[in-house]
Amino acid sequence: MQKRLGRQSILFQLPPVITTAATIVGPKEGEGQLGSYYDRVMPDDMNNQDSWEKCESSMINWTVRAALQKRGLSPEQLDVVLGGDLLNQLIASHFGVRDVSVPFLGLYGACSTMAEGILLAATLVDGGYAANAVVVVSSHHEASERQYRFPNELGVQRPPTASWTVTGAGAVLLETSGSGLRITSATIGKIVDMGIKDPNNMGAAMAPAAADTLWAHMQDTGRMPADYDMIYTGDLGQIGKALLIQLMTQKGLDISGNYEDCGLLIYRPEQDVHAGASGCASSAVVLCGYLFRQMQAKKLRRILLIGTGSLHSPISYWQKESIPCIAHAVSLEI
Amino acid sequence: MQKRLGRQSILFQLPPVITTAATIVGPKEGEGQLGSYYDRVMPDDMNNQDSWEKCESSMINWTVRAALQKRGLSPEQLDVVLGGDLLNQLIASHFGVRDVSVPFLGLYGACSTMAEGILLAATLVDGGYAANAVVVVSSHHEASERQYRFPNELGVQRPPTASWTVTGAGAVLLETSGSGLRITSATIGKIVDMGIKDPNNMGAAMAPAAADTLWAHMQDTGRMPADYDMIYTGDLGQIGKALLIQLMTQKGLDISGNYEDCGLLIYRPEQDVHAGASGCASSAVVLCGYLFRQMQAKKLRRILLIGTGSLHSPISYWQKESIPCIAHAVSLEI
Repeated sequence: MQKRLGRQSILFQLPPVITTAATIVGPKEGEGQLGSYYDRVMPDDMNNQDSWEKCESSMINWTVRAALQKRGLSPEQLDVVLGGDLLNQLIASHFGVRDVSVPFLGLYGACSTMAEGILLAATLVDGGYAANAVVVVSSHHEASERQYRFPNELGVQRPPTASWTVTGAGAVLLETSGSGLRITSATIGKIVDMGIKDPNNMGAAMAPAAADTLWAHMQDTGRMPADYDMIYTGDLGQIGKALLIQLMTQKGLDISGNYEDCGLLIYRPEQDVHAGASGCASSAVVLCGYLFRQMQAKKLRRILLIGTGSLHSPISYWQKESIPCIAHAVSLEI
Repeated sequence: MQKRLGRQSILFQLPPVITTAATIVGPKEGEGQLGSYYDRVMPDDMNNQDSWEKCESSMINWTVRAALQKRGLSPEQLDVVLGGDLLNQLIASHFGVRDVSVPFLGLYGACSTMAEGILLAATLVDGGYAANAVVVVSSHHEASERQYRFPNELGVQRPPTASWTVTGAGAVLLETSGSGLRITSATIGKIVDMGIKDPNNMGAAMAPAAADTLWAHMQDTGRMPADYDMIYTGDLGQIGKALLIQLMTQKGLDISGNYEDCGLLIYRPEQDVHAGASGCASSAVVLCGYLFRQMQAKKLRRILLIGTGSLHSPISYWQKESIPCIAHAVSLEI
């Protein structure tokens, strides 16, 4: 039984199934293009908490519980939660699941964490190490801005290449079988660093990592871009999307007809977020809100989700380092 | 084939094997009780780098390459690296493996990351998703102090309950078979928070999480403490160790005769590190240096390693939150 394919990929013989998904977003995301697809839109960015960080934890908690409720499961019936976020030491996830009392594994793949989590959770479920698993990730615009760049109150002007961190959380529930999105294969990313040093241009930094993983996925699985109804990256934005199309063209593959970036789906053009949306929640709320429903309605039957992550920190930036990036891919079918 | 045991544990039917391990430490650790067990002792805390953070990355890089070299493997022959550290956004790991070109999965379990990584890597190898895997973690005293507490240059007095973050890195190589330490079972921890708020007393905060996981391990596997030659926790220190013994006594289990904390093995008493050693590297350098060799020499035949992690951040502390903790356990046999 061949489970490992090529250098980086995994084939699931008995594909684990994403049987349900839950999402919560902030008001700006609720006013966006996909506003009607989210389970809950918060009226403000605080969610009755007294800090942005605690608001982010409350979103993690809400989505985990909502995902379980949709399937009528109690936390005691859940085998494991895999979670992560952008806050230092993953405090959104850790405080978010603190009262849930479920075995927990913390992950950090920056904005690729949802894909990394689905990939690992699928191996745990497919391998028989867990009967079910929740993967949950989050990001919060204000909490993220003050940690990575500047406090919003400073009013620092953002360059046109900058992206807008999504306030939101998404959770998926994986089970061994059932109705839902089957996880048929996955590709583990390598770290790729092409020397980009501008944390306000993460799309350009991440595009080569996305290209590397997409290429590896094609090589390992023998699939071509046309085998997918759609290919989605997590948060490359306008600049990264154009670069990825260009990089794949250089390899002789045209993805322009069936490729979109989650970061370009969330906000309306008049919301003026510059290059697009970013953050762990970018791919997560699009997957758990929009894509899950589109696939359930069979408007999409086979997609490749490529989570993309910038692995820098403010410290590495201040020390004049470039931005290492990673991308993990999971193929979802119905 | 029963792979899941009880609420939190995993049984490996074909136990993956830790075939080799590599360690590097700083000069203070080299002068400690286990000085002769490490592969390399750096002459200073910089390792020819221009920052502590870059030194930590260089340690990650060195141990991954050293572990591969010991088995005569090239990076191209390695299926996956799982890594993590204490620095924000895991920059030690990300920059450390950037030039290695291997599929990478980032983990964050604070000082429990080595146990979390072995647990997940073992499922990947046992499940057939990888033929081999490296787990690597690190911590660096100065880099950690200035991130979590105060820059060392400030000379802030440390209370007696404080622990000393280990400068070092450890890597283990897992393979499907071969000579070495067999990973026979694992227990995934739950987050436990008993309300301790003092980041200078992490031993007290983490002890209940260690007790919870040790108890779950016994319940799930049917093993008793006496079934192990030794039980090791990662970095509870003197206070946490005494508390864990007390908590287990309350459950009717006496572990005082075959239990030790890795954080109490690293430094000599006259090095005066107060409560003991801590950091991701605490359990990692003891496992990869001392325990690997002790087990190879069959002085220990069956141990339980319980990685312990404090999941707070400076932000959560400033926001007056308590410290959620976690502990993951892996049983190793020869």
